[in-house]
Amino acid sequence: MIKDLLRRQRIETPSWAFGDSGTRFKVFAQAGVPRDPYEKLADAAQVHRFTGVAPTVALHIPWDRVADYADLASRAAELGVGIGAINSNVFQDDAYMLGSVTNPDPKVRARALDHLLECVDIMDATGSATLKLWFSDGTNYPGQDDIRSRQDRLAQALERVYARLGAHQRFLLEYKLFEPAFYVSDVPDWGTAYAHCLRLGDKAQVVVDTGHHAPGTNIEFIVAFLLREGKLGGFDFNSRFYADDDLMVGAADPFQLFRIMFEVIGGGGYDAEANVAFMLDQCHNIEPKIAGQIRSVMNVQEATAKALLVDRAALAVAQAAGDVLGANAVVMDAYNTDVRPLLGQVRTEMGLDPDPMAAYARSGYFERVRDERVGGAPAGWGA
Amino acid sequence: MIKDLLRRQRIETPSWAFGDSGTRFKVFAQAGVPRDPYEKLADAAQVHRFTGVAPTVALHIPWDRVADYADLASRAAELGVGIGAINSNVFQDDAYMLGSVTNPDPKVRARALDHLLECVDIMDATGSATLKLWFSDGTNYPGQDDIRSRQDRLAQALERVYARLGAHQRFLLEYKLFEPAFYVSDVPDWGTAYAHCLRLGDKAQVVVDTGHHAPGTNIEFIVAFLLREGKLGGFDFNSRFYADDDLMVGAADPFQLFRIMFEVIGGGGYDAEANVAFMLDQCHNIEPKIAGQIRSVMNVQEATAKALLVDRAALAVAQAAGDVLGANAVVMDAYNTDVRPLLGQVRTEMGLDPDPMAAYARSGYFERVRDERVGGAPAGWGA
Amino acid sequence: MIKDLLRRQRIETPSWAFGDSGTRFKVFAQAGVPRDPYEKLADAAQVHRFTGVAPTVALHIPWDRVADYADLASRAAELGVGIGAINSNVFQDDAYMLGSVTNPDPKVRARALDHLLECVDIMDATGSATLKLWFSDGTNYPGQDDIRSRQDRLAQALERVYARLGAHQRFLLEYKLFEPAFYVSDVPDWGTAYAHCLRLGDKAQVVVDTGHHAPGTNIEFIVAFLLREGKLGGFDFNSRFYADDDLMVGAADPFQLFRIMFEVIGGGGYDAEANVAFMLDQCHNIEPKIAGQIRSVMNVQEATAKALLVDRAALAVAQAAGDVLGANAVVMDAYNTDVRPLLGQVRTEMGLDPDPMAAYARSGYFERVRDERVGGAPAGWGA
Amino acid sequence: MIKDLLRRQRIETPSWAFGDSGTRFKVFAQAGVPRDPYEKLADAAQVHRFTGVAPTVALHIPWDRVADYADLASRAAELGVGIGAINSNVFQDDAYMLGSVTNPDPKVRARALDHLLECVDIMDATGSATLKLWFSDGTNYPGQDDIRSRQDRLAQALERVYARLGAHQRFLLEYKLFEPAFYVSDVPDWGTAYAHCLRLGDKAQVVVDTGHHAPGTNIEFIVAFLLREGKLGGFDFNSRFYADDDLMVGAADPFQLFRIMFEVIGGGGYDAEANVAFMLDQCHNIEPKIAGQIRSVMNVQEATAKALLVDRAALAVAQAAGDVLGANAVVMDAYNTDVRPLLGQVRTEMGLDPDPMAAYARSGYFERVRDERVGGAPAGWGA
Repeated sequence: MIKDLLRRQRIETPSWAFGDSGTRFKVFAQAGVPRDPYEKLADAAQVHRFTGVAPTVALHIPWDRVADYADLASRAAELGVGIGAINSNVFQDDAYMLGSVTNPDPKVRARALDHLLECVDIMDATGSATLKLWFSDGTNYPGQDDIRSRQDRLAQALERVYARLGAHQRFLLEYKLFEPAFYVSDVPDWGTAYAHCLRLGDKAQVVVDTGHHAPGTNIEFIVAFLLREGKLGGFDFNSRFYADDDLMVGAADPFQLFRIMFEVIGGGGYDAEANVAFMLDQCHNIEPKIAGQIRSVMNVQEATAKALLVDRAALAVAQAAGDVLGANAVVMDAYNTDVRPLLGQVRTEMGLDPDPMAAYARSGYFERVRDERVGGAPAGWGA
Repeated sequence: MIKDLLRRQRIETPSWAFGDSGTRFKVFAQAGVPRDPYEKLADAAQVHRFTGVAPTVALHIPWDRVADYADLASRAAELGVGIGAINSNVFQDDAYMLGSVTNPDPKVRARALDHLLECVDIMDATGSATLKLWFSDGTNYPGQDDIRSRQDRLAQALERVYARLGAHQRFLLEYKLFEPAFYVSDVPDWGTAYAHCLRLGDKAQVVVDTGHHAPGTNIEFIVAFLLREGKLGGFDFNSRFYADDDLMVGAADPFQLFRIMFEVIGGGGYDAEANVAFMLDQCHNIEPKIAGQIRSVMNVQEATAKALLVDRAALAVAQAAGDVLGANAVVMDAYNTDVRPLLGQVRTEMGLDPDPMAAYARSGYFERVRDERVGGAPAGWGA
Repeated sequence: MIKDLLRRQRIETPSWAFGDSGTRFKVFAQAGVPRDPYEKLADAAQVHRFTGVAPTVALHIPWDRVADYADLASRAAELGVGIGAINSNVFQDDAYMLGSVTNPDPKVRARALDHLLECVDIMDATGSATLKLWFSDGTNYPGQDDIRSRQDRLAQALERVYARLGAHQRFLLEYKLFEPAFYVSDVPDWGTAYAHCLRLGDKAQVVVDTGHHAPGTNIEFIVAFLLREGKLGGFDFNSRFYADDDLMVGAADPFQLFRIMFEVIGGGGYDAEANVAFMLDQCHNIEPKIAGQIRSVMNVQEATAKALLVDRAALAVAQAAGDVLGANAVVMDAYNTDVRPLLGQVRTEMGLDPDPMAAYARSGYFERVRDERVGGAPAGWGA
Repeated sequence: MIKDLLRRQRIETPSWAFGDSGTRFKVFAQAGVPRDPYEKLADAAQVHRFTGVAPTVALHIPWDRVADYADLASRAAELGVGIGAINSNVFQDDAYMLGSVTNPDPKVRARALDHLLECVDIMDATGSATLKLWFSDGTNYPGQDDIRSRQDRLAQALERVYARLGAHQRFLLEYKLFEPAFYVSDVPDWGTAYAHCLRLGDKAQVVVDTGHHAPGTNIEFIVAFLLREGKLGGFDFNSRFYADDDLMVGAADPFQLFRIMFEVIGGGGYDAEANVAFMLDQCHNIEPKIAGQIRSVMNVQEATAKALLVDRAALAVAQAAGDVLGANAVVMDAYNTDVRPLLGQVRTEMGLDPDPMAAYARSGYFERVRDERVGGAPAGWGA
């Protein structure tokens, strides 16, 4: 039963994780990095090849803009993967210095809206059912712009995009406490995203990026709450020690990831019909990228396995009895279990190597692309 | 015009600010502290006497439980003040160790609900139109109780209280990130309070306690957002450097208080019909209590005066032009103005001493009550 | 070898963990709580009885003040435990409202110093080698007192205490970011404690309380740094999600506890000659106290076992090679191991039950003291 | 007297503030940006021209590398400014991906050391007396490298640089909590910088960057402490709401800036012989750069003026009396004073326009350089 559930897990990889990334101080170049969306898909396909649970790849527009999206989707299918969420990007034109859809200038807002609508076109062309909206919009200084007017403009843009969605499409609205806006972020927290989505309807949901909260925020509470409200659309997984550090999910606080998955499962978010998207959204600034994605997928699997192991019947008894230590012990017993053998079995039963990291290393894929991908511009956040 | 607006300001003082308070380490006893609700009202009346803008006093039940509330209200009127919000307390019975309205034990929940309904009875008896609900409910350890079930129980209790409200009554739901719950707080953030209030209707609104947020949270954004949604019911003012330190409002970050008042005014929250309650909720652990309240009221007045001075027409022009430094300068120009002379004039025109702190010190009130209030148990959080 | 190291582990329990505790909002009374220091020692002896690694008990003066300390030490020995660190308390007299050793009033400073010297007398009487100094001193408001003068006064007091220490005695200086002081804490961080200890000499060292840091602080870095400087005197273990929540160590972030123990071991702090004191300092506000201490001891053991399992040779190779994922994987491999069977074996070899929690529950100790300890005042922070 | 002190104030501008900057998401290009160090100096000279208190400019190597430093210094003198601190940069070569002076690879460490020594050469060539050392070194994942070994390597590099300093030269060691390192920063806090500097001697001091602390850190405490220890070398001024946002100093929390300057003055750090360097270190991502620097200088001036206005005699009396509200009121009275007229007078007496922002705007300088600086690569963090 648990093995069935683990076998059916689906984790989406982000195309941009395979390109170069860094901080404002420096983007360190790595060897073998893809030069175009096709090469990114090829790398993402490796993650699926060795884990068996990463069958889709999120695109980021314009970083993954191609002339023929049908061709891209077709190439993905040949590689054994599908196109996942379409991620919009309204933060890299010089026009967006003071905001995109919330910009005081209506011309800039129109430009940003056009881009969002283009993303829905790309959804149509690729068959993607999910649009992910993240707005870097905000202000850096008190008084710079009117907080409320910016909400009005945001609401207008969201309405327009919502109206454009097809019957089987939805958008996920992402929130982020800060960066790149430093005083006000226009969608800083789940409450803001929730309120906008609630007004629009069922095709608008909230996406929880695990790195986008203030210190001390209890993320699993938000997960449980949004599931109760039917408004949890998905996750952008990553981890952090301080701010939005975008480290490998589970690397900074594996217990937190376990608690999140525990709430996901308890709230029905792991059921297929819940349609919660489990996506990675993280950088590999200093570690190799494909291996970093494989490790990240495995980290989510391990947290999920532990969360599935919780003896919920025993837990309910202890909770009802007010047995604080007993209830905590039920949860901790699952967390302290070493689930790697169980996951190795699952993989073996799926025809995979039980150790994806070792199998990938042995495959020689990295050495091959490192030698092949010479010349051209490595993909990154800017292209 | 600005002077008119300042003259009409209303700031509510909390009865418990006049009793002893402290930290978990120690409650330091002060001289002259009231021994009963009547004496608390007498002290609160001093705050109004010298500032002219603190005409109501919030009560806290059971700390302010009396045999005859009509008599209490009548005594208040004699003292020149009125009864403000009724604050419920479901955190000090031993039964509430694992929660009140969210407790897994239905008997405890029933007891808590009874208390909340009693508070509405007291509203009826005192003429109070506002119930303030703060729940210390939550859990300390992962697994201790089910997050979602606790939300269900919370929703049920709120429905019952809401149904009991009279035509001209409302409740304000308070949120708090942590303490005394250390893992999950059942109402940890504005989004949670908002979602519950939205479901219930117009008589349920959110109260923003300025000390109850995670580090880095932009409180004025929340204020602007809730005003836009018609869900800002009021403030619990205080200030803090770290956690919920409950220092005098404006003492830790006067610029933040100014920014909050700037958003209040811009969002229409200062208009009388907005019915936003401006309440102090803070302790005076080491400073004298009446003087501490007077200083706090003055701090709110000064922030309000500065916020009223902002040249909003010039600001709008700069914002529309994308003039970052210019727009910020308009706001900072108001903040950097010394408004104490203006407030001194307002007070003089109201027949008050321009310097409330000095006038109170000269009045001899403190020396009198210090000598009179000998014997009896000083009021505190426990009584 | 690892089993030997685990068998030799020593974790000190705090006498005050067995009394009632709470937050500023409420201290919930529990049944069976000790009424005096002798009963606290009896409870602490249970922790040692079932874990085998908790042979000493820290005292807190004046909470554990007795007429005859030799008698107390003798009773401890009969119970199979010894007296550990003496903890001073200069925060609960009304005189200390504005500070103890840093108070502007020299009479208050003298009183506080007398108490500290009395604690050294008690060390002499009990044979304790360690004095733990925590100062709640600080200010709540800017300007309230002079930051630098308070450092001068602190330095003077520390010099006096240092001079009084016997040849085999030392003191550990504790730091804490905030609470109960809300603006300035006079010893807010490790740097401050370190600088004072460095000036004094080898008998002054820093104690790291795991709950006393700002959000985002890397505690294991501090541990590694202090070990490198020879200034790590010990730990006050507990855990927290937000502020100084004093939850069971390892309950909030077990991975952090593992990382701390990993640095302790790598820096030589686990060697007996390093003389690093591993002490619990935490409350059990809502969970049963003896069981809470047993669980806490086990949590430290589990983190230690995992940290001992790290393949340091393989780690050094990966680090030297700049293999980010490989080095991380070595550490995570140890962390992900389920060490409970190993610890069960260690306990069995020590003649203990492999499951201390179950064995304690079966022992009937709690039921016995609950029935016996009727009447009298339960011990708490105030007595 | 206060006017004399204000007139003698010296605030150093950073050459890099005049080039383009941004976040990892986007560097927005601005018009009129300098293309080389000479043009940066020209812009910096405008800041001094209108404020009269910004006579030196810090350089950043290699961003400001020129063929002939004597020529650069000579050109600076013609422009009316001098060369200030030399800032090293060991974070932008691909070799530094895993660290510079703390890198596990000795070849990389040697390269980094060479750069630091080159910076001292440039000090000799330019006459600069101050070297500012910031290391982005650290790790992103637990286990990635050995914390303690990295400290050893850091200590070795610092020793070598220290030994190279001339008789009248010093270095300032900067600390930063996080970014770009996300797990361990090798110099994360003042304590680490202090310990290294203490070991080396008088020519090594700590620099406090106001944006580099954990949430809730009391920066003015650190300032007071370092002044007491003779180890405060200077400031990198900027401000932030969340992390290291690098906003204009005083923009996010003007009261904090005031408190810092209050401690500087009280601790003797404003005296010329204290040799504390007051430097700006901040970006202007969305606001015009020269105007942003002028505003920042003015913000420091205003905070300084308020801090100088504090009635320290009255404050000492209130502090000694334990008069919490009275002492706080003395400080707040100064803070609440509008010092802009006073600073206007000071400027007029210095032969300057009382309103530097307006005078700069009227000067037409920006329009001129915007038109002239066409073609070429705008200066930024990478060049």
